[in-house]
Amino acid sequence: MSEPAPDRVRIRFHPDGATPREVRVPAGTTLFDAASWNGIAVDSTCGGHGTCKKCVMRVVEGEVPISRVDPRAFSPDQMRAGWRLACRAPAERDIVVEVPPLVTRPKAATVGVGRQVVLRPAVQKRCVTLPEPTLSDQRTDLERLRDALDDLELSADLHAVRNLSRAMRAQDGLVTAVVVDEVLVDVEPGDTSTRFYGLAFDLGTTTVVATLLDLATGTPAAVTSLLNPQQPHGADVITRISATMMDPDALGRLTALAHQALDQLAGEVCAEAGVERSEVYEIALAGNATMVHLALGLDPEPLGVAPFVMTSREFPGLSARDLGVQVHPGARAYVFPALGAYVGGDIVAGALASGMDRDRRIRLFIDIGTNCEIVLASGDRLMATAAPAGPAFEGAAIRCGMRAAPGAIEGVKISQDDVLLEVIGDVEPIGLAGSGLVDAVSALVSAGLVDASGRLALPDAPGVPPGLASRLQQVGKERVFVLHFAEGTSMEGALYLSQRDIRELQFAKAAIATGWALLLEEAGLTQADVAQVVLAGSFGSYLSAASAVRIGLVPDVALLRIISAGNVAGEGAKMALLSVRERAAAQALLEEVRYVELSDRPDFNDRFVDRLAFP
Amino acid sequence: MSEPAPDRVRIRFHPDGATPREVRVPAGTTLFDAASWNGIAVDSTCGGHGTCKKCVMRVVEGEVPISRVDPRAFSPDQMRAGWRLACRAPAERDIVVEVPPLVTRPKAATVGVGRQVVLRPAVQKRCVTLPEPTLSDQRTDLERLRDALDDLELSADLHAVRNLSRAMRAQDGLVTAVVVDEVLVDVEPGDTSTRFYGLAFDLGTTTVVATLLDLATGTPAAVTSLLNPQQPHGADVITRISATMMDPDALGRLTALAHQALDQLAGEVCAEAGVERSEVYEIALAGNATMVHLALGLDPEPLGVAPFVMTSREFPGLSARDLGVQVHPGARAYVFPALGAYVGGDIVAGALASGMDRDRRIRLFIDIGTNCEIVLASGDRLMATAAPAGPAFEGAAIRCGMRAAPGAIEGVKISQDDVLLEVIGDVEPIGLAGSGLVDAVSALVSAGLVDASGRLALPDAPGVPPGLASRLQQVGKERVFVLHFAEGTSMEGALYLSQRDIRELQFAKAAIATGWALLLEEAGLTQADVAQVVLAGSFGSYLSAASAVRIGLVPDVALLRIISAGNVAGEGAKMALLSVRERAAAQALLEEVRYVELSDRPDFNDRFVDRLAFP
Repeated sequence: MSEPAPDRVRIRFHPDGATPREVRVPAGTTLFDAASWNGIAVDSTCGGHGTCKKCVMRVVEGEVPISRVDPRAFSPDQMRAGWRLACRAPAERDIVVEVPPLVTRPKAATVGVGRQVVLRPAVQKRCVTLPEPTLSDQRTDLERLRDALDDLELSADLHAVRNLSRAMRAQDGLVTAVVVDEVLVDVEPGDTSTRFYGLAFDLGTTTVVATLLDLATGTPAAVTSLLNPQQPHGADVITRISATMMDPDALGRLTALAHQALDQLAGEVCAEAGVERSEVYEIALAGNATMVHLALGLDPEPLGVAPFVMTSREFPGLSARDLGVQVHPGARAYVFPALGAYVGGDIVAGALASGMDRDRRIRLFIDIGTNCEIVLASGDRLMATAAPAGPAFEGAAIRCGMRAAPGAIEGVKISQDDVLLEVIGDVEPIGLAGSGLVDAVSALVSAGLVDASGRLALPDAPGVPPGLASRLQQVGKERVFVLHFAEGTSMEGALYLSQRDIRELQFAKAAIATGWALLLEEAGLTQADVAQVVLAGSFGSYLSAASAVRIGLVPDVALLRIISAGNVAGEGAKMALLSVRERAAAQALLEEVRYVELSDRPDFNDRFVDRLAFP
Repeated sequence: MSEPAPDRVRIRFHPDGATPREVRVPAGTTLFDAASWNGIAVDSTCGGHGTCKKCVMRVVEGEVPISRVDPRAFSPDQMRAGWRLACRAPAERDIVVEVPPLVTRPKAATVGVGRQVVLRPAVQKRCVTLPEPTLSDQRTDLERLRDALDDLELSADLHAVRNLSRAMRAQDGLVTAVVVDEVLVDVEPGDTSTRFYGLAFDLGTTTVVATLLDLATGTPAAVTSLLNPQQPHGADVITRISATMMDPDALGRLTALAHQALDQLAGEVCAEAGVERSEVYEIALAGNATMVHLALGLDPEPLGVAPFVMTSREFPGLSARDLGVQVHPGARAYVFPALGAYVGGDIVAGALASGMDRDRRIRLFIDIGTNCEIVLASGDRLMATAAPAGPAFEGAAIRCGMRAAPGAIEGVKISQDDVLLEVIGDVEPIGLAGSGLVDAVSALVSAGLVDASGRLALPDAPGVPPGLASRLQQVGKERVFVLHFAEGTSMEGALYLSQRDIRELQFAKAAIATGWALLLEEAGLTQADVAQVVLAGSFGSYLSAASAVRIGLVPDVALLRIISAGNVAGEGAKMALLSVRERAAAQALLEEVRYVELSDRPDFNDRFVDRLAFP
């Protein structure tokens, strides 16, 4: 009897001219994957599909079986000497391999937070010439094609089979097969192998963004966005869920609106890039659980009430049509899986794009919004939770609040005698965005105009700089701080921050801080251990790191360690289109991340109250 | 190292109180399959799905691993003693098992040519009660259902996922899951587990037949048929193929007509049986290669010209919608695979229904039509061919020919002075059906009015009985034999057989006889070795065996050995719905049957000419 196979194996790579590298990977990983994964450059133009025969390596210690494809790339002598195609060579035991110098550079794209992704899309185009049938070779058209692509285990869509016979006969057997995963989705006459595209969607509650990707090169061909047309049914997920509970037709309408938005964006990016819709063979979509449920026509009600249960966390086998996107009729759809009702596919995509699973540093991923999602990576462990931040950052519950749009105050600085505003679009300010709110409160706390408990000072209180006293006003019975007077010191048209606005922000930041503090505690860590804070989402990119630290919204770490990652959900969707390996990593997050539910913790309220004060 | 696994293993069954039986099956076959296949009765109500836990057996010699389900059916002591669930117990080595007495009889249906089929449809309904979610059990709805059906590896249709959450909450978690193969196609509130149906279609060039099957009991719920509405585009496959070559829109029209016919029949059988269309979860269809290509919208042109190539011989993964049949939106479609362009899925279905693969006797399966398909089973070998019989049997090329319909002469007897006709519907005859043609020529040959070369006698020839002389007439320049005078001996309205009609029949029977004679020769056999001739198709059921032998259309065997099997294609389609095992057997025929192409044989013409004469 042979020994049982080990779970993980050690591969020592000897790249030509470079320092040897030893890596540990799950047994059965191909040498190609093990190398790509660990940043060791390997020649390849097909991206590891076994067709370009460029990813040659020599096994010098240990054994790797000869694959079906090896005899086409190597002579018997070469195979005896240990030469193998890395993409077809699984490492089942510890081995040592030599990696020859690069002839070409593998195609790769930089996406996400500085992530280098080696192209290996699920979509492949394969141009082949099929021999003409004769009475002694009556193989069917499909058998003929399968035999020409015998490195794949092809199944075939009816649409592709319909086109197959005409395509074969149009240009003397020269055809291009379009394959998604191992499904033949079309057969095109002639050589169309350089034209294939994918669409990455970030389906946000507020904004929907589409990126058209050229899958042959990995480069974006066009990007566009629009406001989510579901907004009239509610600004946030809870009001949209409520809408479906009150009106039996609302789910159908919301689903149709999501489909229209996605399809309209698909049309726009294709038109901009001069790409036919039928050249788009796959879409990938990241969205929170509610957006995904609504887009798929799934009843969102159970997401909105305890115990917050999803219909499903993953949706394999979808087509683009299921999301209302009219592209190639055989186009598939990859929808990012969700970890929980409030840690959705957008967060999984964001965690993928930020490489939360690739790094041994202690890192916090924080996506701030009405619902705030937090992921903590600490060495081998990943934990996630969702904190109910409420609408403060979206502007809805703030007296002079507004969305981050032209005219919104996004930055606030307060000196002894003046207030300096940064306004989006450099126009006359018309409202206060979430980042401006955080800045304003932070500045007021620093200036001593708001105390640790969150109370606004009276104009005549000791220590109030005379130049600012006139800004401390009363509106009705409420204290306010005026950020901008429209005329003189008249309250007519003035923009201000009210005592209640400050309370709203306190509630929001306390909920978020309770979330990350509990995760750190569960991992046996403190704020000081955090090596990096990744602020995700569009709000994250406006937010001033200093202000966020000042009010206790994020852990108290050096400002350089706080990075704004921007639209990481959309980046994750692009990565899923560019590489099936990245997609597998996203799926693996489902197993790797432990979801921590805050709402049933008996100590949540006490901790929340502790976090209300400003540090 | 352990020994390599054998290809086939020997299982010795000791049924309680009955004689032990030894069978040989492919290694890995479950004990349940091995027993059912060989007619050894095994208890089961779930049909081998691992859920009823009734198919208990005890392994007394050899070893069978313990399955995941065994611990739910047996105590550890029982498992140590060798007790296993037969449906989960693969035989990898030679073994001996004891079979306990039957508690219940397995559900089975008799279909095809006396075939007993144990029910194991691809469609299953499983009623379960799902536990309510709580904050400490936030499994998704789908995870909850999957865990309750953990003997299956379920994937799920979006439609089913959409219904899941509402169904779960409608009746306190009591739901019925509808599963086709291992795909969840719907979730219905409450217990609907006794109502599930399948539709079997025989899509003939002339007639389309639909049978609605109750898959819970295996019994037909309704049957109906209609003429194929593609007929205006051509009576036979070649003219329909030509139609698509001459008009680019014809394929679309023919496809739409096939869909309309299938959908109309679906509506009729459902209405007749009081079954909702949405209770039909699977359809099975048998048809020749041209009918299947047209129904699926595949270009049939390459079927019609040498080298006679199909687009594909099998079509996995189809839905009922792909065939235009509006039943349950998740309904699947099984389309019988084809052996060749002229030995289509109808013949595979017919061979399955006739058990051509189950028998060591030497048997010939002959489906007579414009194209005649022949299958020879001889022990372990199966061979098939197609013979171009031409339109003689369809009535089209016969002067007074007509289809088998009321008024058609289907039987002819000739005595010394009279002609006795059998007419369909016992009405005044209006034409001659194919079976009547064979009868008439056979009778004329026996009466000496047609010689071995096929020439009709002149009225004054020696040996012509005086009572028949008046029937030997001339029409134009052609000799004819009058079968029926409308008035006296006037040729006005008379029905007759012409010299050319006899020639047409000679060509047809020579083509067919050349076909089966070549198959016999390839197998090293002669006519005398044939143990049974199965005449398939509706024409086969009208044909007189004696006449068929008399003119040399079928081998010269004892008449009792010639059986008319009727619509075996439709029976095969029913079997595919009733049992996934039978469906697997149909698929296996693709590998087992050797297709013999006649059209490229250099000796075909000589042999054909040899067969023109009457024996």
